[in-house]
Amino acid sequence: MDIKAVVGRNVKQYREAKGLSQEQLAFEADLHRTYVSGVERGVRNPTVLIVAKLASALGVKPYKLLE
Amino acid sequence: MDIKAVVGRNVKQYREAKGLSQEQLAFEADLHRTYVSGVERGVRNPTVLIVAKLASALGVKPYKLLE
Repeated sequence: MDIKAVVGRNVKQYREAKGLSQEQLAFEADLHRTYVSGVERGVRNPTVLIVAKLASALGVKPYKLLE
Repeated sequence: MDIKAVVGRNVKQYREAKGLSQEQLAFEADLHRTYVSGVERGVRNPTVLIVAKLASALGVKPYKLLE
């Protein structure tokens, strides 16, 4: 699986496990909701700083989003 | 530690463990040597696609570079 798709699947999985909407996650991570949506769909190619922001908002270590 | 510094430390560590120069790693990952140098120094903010290219050239899973 493409790394972007791996990140997207993980973000969506952790987000749903926390009961957060994309909008809530976007707010927590200081990102736009459409950007979070693009990450989850595997169309965005986030930088490691963005991965770290998402991970922090999801309460997981950054590497978990690439696993 | 900043996530960029974490990635840099890991890239350097895996690269040296493989006995590769920055130039050799750059060639294998299809990146410029100065870019690889910037990643190792933690000044670059690579995307997950770049992380995957570096990981592939280093023979490790992408998430290992963020760990």
